[in-house]
Parts: sequence; C-alpha cells; structure tokens
Amino acid sequence: IRVGYPEVIYCEGKELEHLKKIVEDMLKLDKNILATRVSKEAYRAICEVTDNLIYSEVARICVINPKDIKKEGLVAVVTGGTADIKVAEEAAITLETFGNNVDRIYDVGVAGIHRLFNNLERIRKANVVVAVAGMEGALASVVAGLVDVPVIAVPTSVGYGANFNGLSALLTMLNSCAAGVSVVNIDNGFGAGYIASLINKRVAEGVE
Amino acid sequence: IRVGYPEVIYCEGKELEHLKKIVEDMLKLDKNILATRVSKEAYRAICEVTDNLIYSEVARICVINPKDIKKEGLVAVVTGGTADIKVAEEAAITLETFGNNVDRIYDVGVAGIHRLFNNLERIRKANVVVAVAGMEGALASVVAGLVDVPVIAVPTSVGYGANFNGLSALLTMLNSCAAGVSVVNIDNGFGAGYIASLINKRVAEGVE
Amino acid sequence: IRVGYPEVIYCEGKELEHLKKIVEDMLKLDKNILATRVSKEAYRAICEVTDNLIYSEVARICVINPKDIKKEGLVAVVTGGTADIKVAEEAAITLETFGNNVDRIYDVGVAGIHRLFNNLERIRKANVVVAVAGMEGALASVVAGLVDVPVIAVPTSVGYGANFNGLSALLTMLNSCAAGVSVVNIDNGFGAGYIASLINKRVAEGVE
Amino acid sequence: IRVGYPEVIYCEGKELEHLKKIVEDMLKLDKNILATRVSKEAYRAICEVTDNLIYSEVARICVINPKDIKKEGLVAVVTGGTADIKVAEEAAITLETFGNNVDRIYDVGVAGIHRLFNNLERIRKANVVVAVAGMEGALASVVAGLVDVPVIAVPTSVGYGANFNGLSALLTMLNSCAAGVSVVNIDNGFGAGYIASLINKRVAEGVE
Amino acid sequence: IRVGYPEVIYCEGKELEHLKKIVEDMLKLDKNILATRVSKEAYRAICEVTDNLIYSEVARICVINPKDIKKEGLVAVVTGGTADIKVAEEAAITLETFGNNVDRIYDVGVAGIHRLFNNLERIRKANVVVAVAGMEGALASVVAGLVDVPVIAVPTSVGYGANFNGLSALLTMLNSCAAGVSVVNIDNGFGAGYIASLINKRVAEGVE
Amino acid sequence: IRVGYPEVIYCEGKELEHLKKIVEDMLKLDKNILATRVSKEAYRAICEVTDNLIYSEVARICVINPKDIKKEGLVAVVTGGTADIKVAEEAAITLETFGNNVDRIYDVGVAGIHRLFNNLERIRKANVVVAVAGMEGALASVVAGLVDVPVIAVPTSVGYGANFNGLSALLTMLNSCAAGVSVVNIDNGFGAGYIASLINKRVAEGVE
Amino acid sequence: IRVGYPEVIYCEGKELEHLKKIVEDMLKLDKNILATRVSKEAYRAICEVTDNLIYSEVARICVINPKDIKKEGLVAVVTGGTADIKVAEEAAITLETFGNNVDRIYDVGVAGIHRLFNNLERIRKANVVVAVAGMEGALASVVAGLVDVPVIAVPTSVGYGANFNGLSALLTMLNSCAAGVSVVNIDNGFGAGYIASLINKRVAEGVE
Amino acid sequence: IRVGYPEVIYCEGKELEHLKKIVEDMLKLDKNILATRVSKEAYRAICEVTDNLIYSEVARICVINPKDIKKEGLVAVVTGGTADIKVAEEAAITLETFGNNVDRIYDVGVAGIHRLFNNLERIRKANVVVAVAGMEGALASVVAGLVDVPVIAVPTSVGYGANFNGLSALLTMLNSCAAGVSVVNIDNGFGAGYIASLINKRVAEGVE
Ligand SMILES: Nc1ncnc2c1ncn2[C@@H]1O[C@H](COP(=O)(O)O)[C@@H](O)[C@H]1O
Ligand SMILES: Nc1ncnc2c1ncn2[C@@H]1O[C@H](COP(=O)(O)O)[C@@H](O)[C@H]1O
Ligand SMILES: Nc1ncnc2c1ncn2[C@@H]1O[C@H](COP(=O)(O)O)[C@@H](O)[C@H]1O
Ligand SMILES: Nc1ncnc2c1ncn2[C@@H]1O[C@H](COP(=O)(O)O)[C@@H](O)[C@H]1O
Ligand SMILES: [Mg+2]
Ligand SMILES: [Mg+2]
Ligand SMILES: [Mg+2]
Ligand SMILES: [Mg+2]
Ligand SMILES: [Mg+2]
Ligand SMILES: [Mg+2]
Ligand SMILES: [Mg+2]
Ligand SMILES: [Mg+2]
Repeated sequence: IRVGYPEVIYCEGKELEHLKKIVEDMLKLDKNILATRVSKEAYRAICEVTDNLIYSEVARICVINPKDIKKEGLVAVVTGGTADIKVAEEAAITLETFGNNVDRIYDVGVAGIHRLFNNLERIRKANVVVAVAGMEGALASVVAGLVDVPVIAVPTSVGYGANFNGLSALLTMLNSCAAGVSVVNIDNGFGAGYIASLINKRVAEGVE
Repeated sequence: IRVGYPEVIYCEGKELEHLKKIVEDMLKLDKNILATRVSKEAYRAICEVTDNLIYSEVARICVINPKDIKKEGLVAVVTGGTADIKVAEEAAITLETFGNNVDRIYDVGVAGIHRLFNNLERIRKANVVVAVAGMEGALASVVAGLVDVPVIAVPTSVGYGANFNGLSALLTMLNSCAAGVSVVNIDNGFGAGYIASLINKRVAEGVE
Repeated sequence: IRVGYPEVIYCEGKELEHLKKIVEDMLKLDKNILATRVSKEAYRAICEVTDNLIYSEVARICVINPKDIKKEGLVAVVTGGTADIKVAEEAAITLETFGNNVDRIYDVGVAGIHRLFNNLERIRKANVVVAVAGMEGALASVVAGLVDVPVIAVPTSVGYGANFNGLSALLTMLNSCAAGVSVVNIDNGFGAGYIASLINKRVAEGVE
Repeated sequence: IRVGYPEVIYCEGKELEHLKKIVEDMLKLDKNILATRVSKEAYRAICEVTDNLIYSEVARICVINPKDIKKEGLVAVVTGGTADIKVAEEAAITLETFGNNVDRIYDVGVAGIHRLFNNLERIRKANVVVAVAGMEGALASVVAGLVDVPVIAVPTSVGYGANFNGLSALLTMLNSCAAGVSVVNIDNGFGAGYIASLINKRVAEGVE
Repeated sequence: IRVGYPEVIYCEGKELEHLKKIVEDMLKLDKNILATRVSKEAYRAICEVTDNLIYSEVARICVINPKDIKKEGLVAVVTGGTADIKVAEEAAITLETFGNNVDRIYDVGVAGIHRLFNNLERIRKANVVVAVAGMEGALASVVAGLVDVPVIAVPTSVGYGANFNGLSALLTMLNSCAAGVSVVNIDNGFGAGYIASLINKRVAEGVE
Repeated sequence: IRVGYPEVIYCEGKELEHLKKIVEDMLKLDKNILATRVSKEAYRAICEVTDNLIYSEVARICVINPKDIKKEGLVAVVTGGTADIKVAEEAAITLETFGNNVDRIYDVGVAGIHRLFNNLERIRKANVVVAVAGMEGALASVVAGLVDVPVIAVPTSVGYGANFNGLSALLTMLNSCAAGVSVVNIDNGFGAGYIASLINKRVAEGVE
Repeated sequence: IRVGYPEVIYCEGKELEHLKKIVEDMLKLDKNILATRVSKEAYRAICEVTDNLIYSEVARICVINPKDIKKEGLVAVVTGGTADIKVAEEAAITLETFGNNVDRIYDVGVAGIHRLFNNLERIRKANVVVAVAGMEGALASVVAGLVDVPVIAVPTSVGYGANFNGLSALLTMLNSCAAGVSVVNIDNGFGAGYIASLINKRVAEGVE
Repeated sequence: IRVGYPEVIYCEGKELEHLKKIVEDMLKLDKNILATRVSKEAYRAICEVTDNLIYSEVARICVINPKDIKKEGLVAVVTGGTADIKVAEEAAITLETFGNNVDRIYDVGVAGIHRLFNNLERIRKANVVVAVAGMEGALASVVAGLVDVPVIAVPTSVGYGANFNGLSALLTMLNSCAAGVSVVNIDNGFGAGYIASLINKRVAEGVE
C-alpha cells in the first residue's frame, strides 16, 4: 500500500548495524532507495554497504541505487529565509525522487516581500506549493492569499526564544487567515514532499 | 484571487447589521454565497435580507442564493465518531458548494476499526480524503496507512480533560507515522473542505 | 509621573459603586477622563454620575467630561480583519484622547494583501504604526517590512482552536522576521495607544 | 511492602560510589536484583562489585545475581516502530525478572496496520497487553479496540517537532476512544512492566 | 469484541433525538444499558423512551433496563476529598453494572492521612484499587506505596488556579514515585471502572 | 537591607574573571561569603583568590572565609529520594551559614511512607520544615498534614517524561490539599534555606 | 493535628445539603468556624442553620459562631491593585480568625511605586508580609528587596490575555530575584493567611 | 526599505562559507556592516575576509568595516542583573552602530531598588529606555512607572526552573501594570536596539 516508486528509510534512532542490514535487503529490490535524516555517521555506514549513492549533506538525505526517474508536473518549494533551506531541500529531493519536477524559490520571506512578488509568476505555474518558514512563519498565509493552488506549509524550528522550537511558526500556519493551507510537523520536509507528490502526480497523470 | 465560484462569509464575531450589509452587497453579484459559523441569530438576520437560502443547523452553514453547481471528482469525508459530524458537515457542504462530489462515511473510528475496513473500497475511490476526529484523533494515521491519496486531517475539540480542547487530536495528526497527512486548525471543517476542493478539482479538470 | 492629559480608569473588575466614586472624584479635576473596558452596566453606572460623556460601545471606552484636545503628529492604526476593529478602536480613541491625529486603515490583512499595498502611502505618513491582528497575526511583520517607522503590534484573541485565545498571534508578532516591531498584551488596545502616543508626541513636539 | 521477588534499583542520578554500595548491600540478600536506567558507566561500576550479572544495553537494564525465576501467565508487549524497542525491552525484561511469560510483538504500528492484524491471535492470548508507541501513539487505542484484556499504554519520546518529547503520544493515549487503556509516564517501560506483572500474576495465581 | 454485559452509551454531545433513538434500539437487545455523562435534560429524554431505569444524579449515570447482575471479586474505590465523589461514583456504578463488587472508601486524602491508614485493611482486600483525587493528586502514590495490587489513578478537575483543570493531578499521578500506578484521563471515572473491571473479573474468574 | 550575616554570590553565568574580582572585593569585608551554583571551574577560579574556603561538591556551594557562626533554633530539611539531596544540601548549608541548626532527614518519600512516620518526632521539633522532592512531589502535602509548622516546599527537576523538568512537582506543591505549604522555584535550595532562616531566626530570637 | 482554633470549611463544590450538615455538626463544638469560598447561595444555606455569623461578600468568607479571639503579633497584607483586594481579604480575615493582628495596605503596586515607599515603615513592623498581586505580580519581589521578613506571595488571576489566568504573576513570584519570597496557589488567600499565621504566632509566642 | 545606515547580517545558522561570501559582497558597498549572533568560529571566518572589524565577545557582535557614525539623541539601556549584560550590549552596540548616543546603566534590578533610584535622573534624560531583565523581569514595569518615555522591554533567558527559558520574564513584561511598555522576543537585544533607534532618531531629527 505504498505510492510512488522509491523505498523509504527513516534513519533517526536506528542502530548503524540495523540500518546497514535494511539497506542491504532493499538493494535486492533494484529500486531507488530514499534514506532521510542521515547523519554523517549513518552516511558512512551506508557507504560500507554500497557506493552507488548520492548524499545531500544539507538535506541529510541519501538517494541509494539511483535510477532514472521520469519527472511529471511541477511543485514549487519556497522558503522564508536561508536557514530554512535544509528543510526545503528535504522536501525538494523527496519530490524529485518520487518523480516530480521541482522549482526552488528560496529566501522570499515577508521581511522583504518584494522578492516574493518578483517570483509570483513562477510560483503560480506549480500544481502545489510547499511553503517552508520558521520564526513567525507568515510566508504560508501570504502565499496562499496570492495563489489558487494548495499550499503545504512546513514550520521550521529556525528562531529562538518565544519561537519555542518551531511552535510559533506551527501555530501561525494552522491559523492562516487565507484558505488553502494545510500543515505538516515542524521540520518535516519529507512529509511535505510526500503529500505534495501525491497531489502533483495525481493532477499530472489524471485519474486512472 | 479566489478559486472556485461561491463568495464566502465567515460570520463569527461579525455584528448582525454588518453581516446583513455584506449579504445584501453580495446578492448583487448573482453567485452562490457560502456563509460559515452561522449562529441561529445570524441565520435569522440573513433571513431578513433574503429567503432564498438553505441552512444546515448542524454544520452552522448557510448557502445563500443557491445555484446549480456542476460537481466533479470525488472527496471522501470520514469521521471517527458521531460527535465529529458537525465539523465534517462543514467540510462536506463547503466541498459541495465549491463543485465537488462528496461521499460521507461517518462513525468509523479506531474503537471499532472493522467499520473502517468495511468502507475501504468506498474511501479508495476518492481523490482526497478529509479525516475528521476528536479525542485521540488516530483515524487520520490509520486511514493514511490504508490509502494512496492525500489525507487532509481535521482535529476536533470533541473530548474532555487531557484533550485540552482538541490539542490532543491536533498533535496526534501532526505526528502521523503514516506519510500523506497534512493538518488544518482544530474544528476547521471549512478549511479542510477548501483545500480538498483545490486538490480534487485540479485532478478532475487536469492542468489547464 | 503621568504623561499626557487625561486621567485613566481601568473599569474591569471594579465594583460599580467604587467606580462611580472614582469618577465623581476625578470630575473635580476638570480634565478629560478616559475609562476603558466599560461594560454596558458600567456605562450606565457612570451615567448616574454625569451625562457629559461619550461612549464607544465597540471600543468599550468612555471619554468623560470631554474637553477640546489639540491633536499633533500622526499615528496609523491598521487591522487585519473586521473582527479586530474593537481592539483597534480602543487604541485609536486612546490616541485621540491623548492628543494624537489618527489614521484608521482597517481590514487590510495578508489574506488580501493588495488592500495593504493600496494603502501604503497613507501608512508611511505616520510617525508610528499600531498593527492589530488576530488569527496568525502576520500583518505586523509584513507592515514592518514595508515601512521605516516603529510598529507597535497588538495580537488579538480573534480566532479559534490552535489560536489558543491569541497566543498564536502573540508568538507570531514576537518572532517577527522584520525588525522594528514590539508587542503589547493580547487585546491591549489601550497599551498600544498609550506607547504610540508617547512616541508620536515626542516626535511631533521635538525634545524639550 | 514490595510485591514479587527482585529488589529494584533506579540508577539515574545516583553517584557511582553510592550505587556500588547499594549493590553490595543487596547482594547479601541472595535475591535477584533489577537495576534500571543503567548507563555504560554505571554498568562498569556495578561490574567492579560483582561479575554475576546480565546487561541489556538496549534496555539499559542489569539483572544482577540472576536466579532461576518461575514464569507464569502471559503478557504481550507490542510496539509501533523499531525505535520504541528500547522502552519495550525495559518493560519485557522487568516482566520476566518478576516472573511473567512475555510475548514480544514489535513494529506493528498503524502505518502498516496489516502487521498488527496478522499478530492478533498471539496478542489475544495474553492476560495484559503493554502497548509501546511514540510519534502519534495511536497503537494503544487500536489494540484496545481489538482485544478484551487491559492495555497498559507507554508513550515514548520517539519523534520530533510537535511531538514535544512524547507529549503527543501521551495525550493520544490518555484520550483513547477505546475503553480499557490506562497510561504510564513517557518512556516508563519499567512502570508498565511492573503494573502488568501485578495484573498477570494475580490472574495466573488466582486470589489467595 | 466487547467485554462484559451491558451496552454503553456516552451521552455528551449527542442530540436528544439521536439519543432516544439509540436507547430504543438497544432496548430490543434485552440487556443492561449503561448511559454515562447524562445531563438532566438527557435523563428526561431517556424517560420518554422507558421508565425502567435508575438515575444517579451525582454520577450522571443511567442504568437502563436494569437486570440482576452477578457480582464477583472486589474493587476498592477511594477518593481524596468529597468533591471527587462524583467521579468516583461514575467508576463505582460502572464497576457494579459490569458485575464487580465495590467497596467505596471516600475522603481519605493525604491532608488527613490517618483516615487512609484506618482503612488500609479494607483496601488491601481488593483485587484492584481505583484512586480518585484532584488538587495535587498525591493519593495514588501514597496508596500504591501501601498496597500490592494495581492502582488505577483518576485525576479530577477539582481545584483552581495552578491546578489548570486537573493537569496538576494528572502529572502527579503519571510521575508516581511508587510503582504499580497507571492513569486514565482527567475525570474519566467510566474509563477507570472499565479497566478495573477487566482486571478484577479476570482475576475472579481465572483464565479460561 | 540584607538579613543575616554572610554575603551571597550567585555564580551561574558569571565570567570567571568577574567572579574572582567580586570575591576579592568581598574578602575585604572580613565576613562569611556564601557562593552558590559553583561549578568545578568556578571553584578553581575562586581557589586562585583564596584557599580559605570549604567546597561542597554535591551542593555546589562554597563557604569562603568561613567564620564561627552561632547557630539558633532548628530547621528540618527532608527529601523524598536520594537524587533530591543535592538541592537539599544547598538549602541545608545556606541555613547553617546563616546561623541555623539543621536536622537532615533524607529519602523519606511517599513510596515508603513508614520511613517518614519513623522520623516524625524529629521533624516536629523544628520551627520550619524544608521539604524537597521531585517526580510527583507529594512529600510536601503529606508532611504538612502531619506537622503544625510552616513547610517550605522545594520542587526538584528529578524525574523524566511528564515531569517536564520539575513542573509536575511544582504544580503538586502549589495545589497542596494540606494547608501550611508555600513554594519556591524548582531546584531553588538557596531560596528555601533563605526564607526558612528568616522564619527560624525570628522565632528563636523573638521580636526585637 | 490542626493548629490554631477555628474549624475550617472549604465550600467550593460542596452540595448545599451536605454543607448545612457539616455546619450543624461543627456548631456542637462551640468553636469559631471559618467557611471559605462561600457563594451567596451557600451563605443563604448556612443562614438556615444559624444566624450567628458574619459574612464578607468581598472575601466570600463566613465566620460562623464568632467568638472573641486574642490577637497576637502583626502581619502586613499588601496588594498591587484594587482588584486584588478580594483575595487579600480572604487572607486578612483568615489571619484575624486565627488570632493575628493584621495591617491592610492596599493598592501600592509598582505602577505607582511611591505609594509603596510611603508605607514602608508600616510594612517593616510586621513579622510576615502577605503580598497579593495580579497582572505581572512584581510587587512581591520589590517588597522582598525592601524588608527583612518572610514574604508570602499570592498571585491573583486579575488581568487578561498573556496573563493566562494568573500564570504570569505566578511565574514572576516563583522567579523573584530578591530572596525571602515563597508562593502559594493563584488566588489562594486562605493558604497565604494560614501559613502566615503559623509563622507570626510562633514568633509572637516564642518556642514552647 | 531599510532605515539607518549599516547593513545587517544575522549569523545564527549560516554556513561559514555562505557567511564569508555575504561579507565579501557587502564590503563592496563601503558601508558599516553589523553582524549579530557571531560565534567565535563565525568571527574567525569573517577575519579571513577582512581584518578591518571590531568584535564584542560579550555581545557576540562584529562591526565590520567600521566608519565614523554621527550619533544623535539618547537611549538608556538598563539591566536587572549582570547576567543580562550580554543581551544589553547587543542592544547598545546596535544602537551605536545605527547612530544613537547610549547611556548604559547596568545591574539596577528590583532586588536592590535603591540603585535604580540613584540613577533615575540619568534614565529620564533619554528619549527611549531599553529595559533588559531575566528571572521575574519586574524591572520594565518599575521603570515605566517612573519615566515618561517609551520603554522597550527585553526579557532574557537568565534564570532556571519555572523561568522556562525566559517565558517568565516575557509574560511579566507583556502584563506590565504600568503603561508605556512594549516587548520584543526573549534575548532579542538587536530587535530592541533597532526599534529604539527608529524612535530616538525620529525624535532627534524631527519629522522631515
Ligand atoms: N523525515 C521524516 N519525518 C517523518 N517521517 C519520515 C521521515 N522520513 C521518512 N519518514 C517515514 O518513515 C517511514 C519509514 O520508517 P522506517 O520503516 O522506520 O524506516 C517512511 O515510509 C515514511 O513514512
Ligand atoms: N485596557 C487596559 N489594559 C491594561 N491596562 C489598562 C487598560 N486601561 C487602563 N489601563 C491601566 O490602568 C491604569 C488605571 O488603573 P486603575 O487605577 O486600577 O483604574 C491606567 O493608568 C492604565 O495604565
Ligand atoms: N465518560 C466516558 N468517558 C470516555 N469514554 C466513555 C465514557 N462513557 C462511555 N465511553 C466510551 O464511549 C463508548 C460509547 O460511545 P458512543 O458509541 O459514542 O455512545 C463506550 O463504549 C465507551 O468506550
Ligand atoms: N541558587 C540561587 N537561586 C536563586 N537566587 C540565588 C541563588 N543563590 C543566590 N541567589 C540570589 O542571588 C543574589 C546574589 O546575586 P548576584 O549579585 O548576581 O551575585 C543573592 O543575594 C541571592 O538573593
Ligand atoms: Mg489561495
Ligand atoms: Mg497513504
Ligand atoms: Mg520596517
Ligand atoms: Mg478492548
Ligand atoms: Mg504497591
Ligand atoms: Mg500542617
Ligand atoms: Mg528581603
Ligand atoms: Mg511611564
């Protein structure tokens, strides 16, 4: 009951030996494997199993046994600041590995809102927008007020003090005064990419 | 910059005179008007302006100046219990007024999970699922583990004690261990219906 | 050690007899009296003492013994929605009673951000902006990113669910990614008006 | 006034010298000693006192001076994911050391609910179920809806973001819509094992 | 998959017409019906369907169509204060309707701990203890330190201020320093009675 | 406006150079100096200034330039467990340095309440009791129900999970159902010792 | 094991019939009876039992069967504002009924700190200070910095918004940067009076 | 749309290579550059780009490419304790770099309120006061009650236990009973300096 093609491993909290075992087993399936939350140690452990892999340090993602993927449709991934990029890349690489075209539009938060406006035409071309923002997280509402497609909002833990590790952005996004926004867990780039992929591919492929 | 056809009024906290004025103005546009969070008092105030309207007491929604709406695609609206139906109906009527076919599957929560399994074929026919649940809100995860379409989760404030007015269900849904879930505000049936409509119609119509 | 001219009474939680006594005593001073958080019952009690007063039901404010006030400078009071107006009016009337010119610019929240842009020239004329918003409270950040004057942000309790009675807007405003914002208590229109008056008048009058 | 046979030491926060002294004293009693929350340092300290002990690194438990234990009845320990196993093992080893038969059924969470159904017959054989889950913690409700025995739920701190270190799973379990669930502290495998042992042994032994 | 004999209806939030319909349907089964959270209005509605019922106003419980129930084993229900009795009675009547002998020992909280000691022999005769307490909720720990049977703790919302509607007692009980305690939701007398019944009856009947 | 004799330095967060400077200056006053929250690094820094000092590693306190102190009256310091001793010692040494006799009665928490009863005569001899406890913090209520003197309660951060770093014990103590308890900050042994000293000395010396 | 002379009844949540019964029983003892949290309905119920009583509506306290009380020592009760007086009076009348002289010094909060300074000589005459304040609750710290006697701080629920029903004042008081402060529950005037009485009487009477 | 002259870089969470690139680009503009939240590593990285810079280790600020700045008006920066100085210096250096005269008045908190009074004349000379305090944060209210200029309050995370990383001081400041206070995020010295600069310069320069 799993959509899309790659197998997925969530590495956080897995023992390295256990992890290597999982990767070895999956390699037999001859499919793309997407490993998320891959620390440098976990990356090195996986390298002992295979060297046929691509590692994004910023996204903490490994695409193992990478195969050619046919990409469809379009998803825009936007961020408020540069510190949100690590979460955005988790979403973007997830999207690409699941077969979606991605347009990355970073650092367009509301402190300098003209940069958002300058990119509006690009954003409007997408079937879904993934909006990634920390601190006050206002980006998702502003974007949803400007586009007609679903916005998947990802609060990040970027910030300090009354940010309470992402609670501030999370509440902002849940209370969006613009309709068309739904929200995933704090820093959950994978989750946002996954649901955005479900939507975009269904639009691109039409109903079977 | 509003998708779909109806005009929307959020009645909560609006003075009755102000509300009547808004309705009067909108009636000139000759479109469907969807009024949400309509108390009985607000309903009576709107009736003074026009009697061409349908009121759902349970959903607290008025469809004013109702026009024939062409319905497309399919959205499943599921609830955990019967007390969640008022929020589910807010979603369902929103969806219908925006031109979506809706399949209502109520009271299929995890306390009696066989009822959910009995309805799985119906749920799997939809382009999007809106999952509405209070108390522990486990329904959204369970459904997402069983279907391949996006699940829009709506936590409700149904429950008491450590439920903290819906916080429990909200956190459950944000932490879903099954991928493919995104979440709207507590009791926000309208918001769930709106984003589900954006998704379903884009799928049904294909990309322009 | 009190700036400005009017005496101030905070009526919440004061017994009606006690309140009437305070008003009677203050009337001897022959000054403007600003009473805040005036319920209808409190209003009626004050009317028994004097009929020389103006009551704003929406702001729940009485200006008692109203005198001609010389108005200086300019403060812009902006709101996200119409439900925020009651808090905004508490700020605006406080400002006027303390001798400030006020420009009211209501319902310009981020769900329809073009209305904010259409009013930017008016807002930029002010020495201070009071930004009043509930739900996700993004207005304050967006405004602060667009103007060069201090923004006093007032979170309101407008909203429901994960809004937690204004906590959502409060956290948003404290975490503003645009600099130049400081924040008062939830629904504290009086407090925002008071500090905005301190700033505006000092600018208008210059340093003594 | 302590049930069962082993002596118990909770090592967290105890100075190593103090800990060694306690172990030495207890050894005189010639009984099983169950030490919980044993860090590697604490383990090494205990080894200086005796080498007659078994250490489970994953459960962070030492059984010191292990004696033959007669095991009675049956308790099922189930987990949602693999990261919950460390807490589950704390429960399982506690149960065994107190004289209970244990059936371990791990990684049967609601994201892949068929694995739970495949194991239902095994689970139903137990006198008590200990259900261990992090993230959204839905496992306890689902199990309780499917079995007729008491379910002791253990929320774990597995997860991130809006999980708030286990708060999410804790609230889910307290709000279970299926009756028959009671809850212990986050990550408290020992506590769950202890009360499950009280129940299972009383059932197995009958009332004296 | 329901243990015990009575049917259960949770009345909170059910429309009166809906409730009457449910009762009518259940009456056909010729079984005990236990209705919980029965307001006076709900009670009157049920009376329109049948007059063969017993209402406990303090427990807000109706036993409809009451049949002779064979009672087994023993459960002690203890409370800290007199204000906790309404929750305790919800547990006690649930227990009796499910076929358990109940010993009620009320108002034995830690402020006057000698009353608890005076009743220790009675408490120790039970197979399970249901400990109901509000305010600081210390009763559950103290009892668990004194008995060898499982303690099901029910925090109540009795108290004010930093009690935060039962949160204080809930946290106390979850953090019990005495082992053998597990916890249900705030004010959830029914849930405590239900799980205590599962335990007591299994002990009394032995394993089949 | 400082009671008692010693000078007090709170070392947390002070730069080492700054700290040495403060100690040097105070040494000129020829008085006892009580330094709290003294890390090993801070201790070493102070040693560079003077070697006339006593360091309690467990209490993280230095008494610098120790002078003979006349001790009066009696304060009992009790703890629930052994992990609370570090906070209790902060209180006890503070009390002694301020000139109070102290009776330490440790590890008498409610999990084994007979140990508390065995020490009741000693506790009742004191003019004030300082009750130090973590986890569920029930000790303070139980003690206050048994003695007729003021109880100063100190919640500790000992525990895990739903303890929330001492919040659980703090709330328990604030909600004590036994009168005669007041509470200081989590882990604030110094603060408890200070106010207990104010009370005990005033009693011992009588009113001047 | 109760100090002082009067019997005490906490009326909140007690059924009226139950309350009358308790009062009747206590009247036989021929002692002062202090009933707290007495609503008007409860007052009327008590009047049916006896007319020998004094009711303070503001403090919601009844002194039933009032006897001559010898008053000793001195306790100062201070408040920040006038809205805190109802809690202060609960403390003051409790103190008087337990045999303490009380000096009431109200409305001396930090917004107009000169009023506090004008009353410093009176405050310093007391053996204990009860400091009652809502909103930001700074009064307790400021007073403790100015006097050498123990300060019992009572946070009140006076305020709104980010006051969170007294949480703000509670946290302020627990974090007092001036030593010599301990804290009771929000709005707990009785508790503050009780412990202040324990202290004051012990000082006044000397150690037996 | 940025006021004042320097460019600003927030270094937290920026990769060192990225940071060096930003500094290099900005150096071309021949302006002051203010870098905040500069760790020692970040400082060393910047030194590789230019050695024309001043580093304040305590404020974690670099002024890069420092130019002569004309200073206007006056802002007072006050702190409660010495541990608050690091946040205060972030505000003070921000103010100076933006062209404001600054008067630093440190360690004048309410535990020793006479030091505040001794400095009142200096504080009253300022156009704005920045009040920095941790623990209970009462300083802002007390200062606002004593001066007629706007007070920008900065809660700090200094403290422990029920301080909850600055939440206590934050709530205190938001609930100030003295009018004229507005609040920035916990530890946000830069934000306070920025808005204080906006106010002071506008006053000093008059309206253009
Ligand atoms: N970053 C992530 N956050 C949350 N869930 C994830 C993440 N990455 C992967 N997952 C989920 O974890 C599942 C794999 O978990 P596991 O079987 O424990 O490796 C995938 O199917 C995803 O649903
Ligand atoms: N709406 C309000 N919210 C908070 N404080 C207020 C409000 N209105 C007035 N105040 C403050 O209350 C003071 C008067 O309080 P009082 O002496 O109790 O009437 C004024 O000086 C203001 O500082
Ligand atoms: N007081 C209560 N609190 C929580 N759950 C309850 C309560 N009373 C009954 N229930 C549960 O609610 C179920 C019936 O719900 P319903 O079908 O909505 O009437 C029962 O099987 C119980 O599990
Ligand atoms: N452990 C502690 N917790 C809280 N406050 C303390 C502690 N130790 C000392 N203090 C207070 O800190 C003051 C000294 O602070 P300082 O002037 O910063 O050294 C003393 O007078 C005490 O009131
Ligand atoms: Mg939109
Ligand atoms: Mg799915
Ligand atoms: Mg700006
Ligand atoms: Mg069951
Ligand atoms: Mg026990
Ligand atoms: Mg006592
Ligand atoms: Mg003092
Ligand atoms: Mg002022």
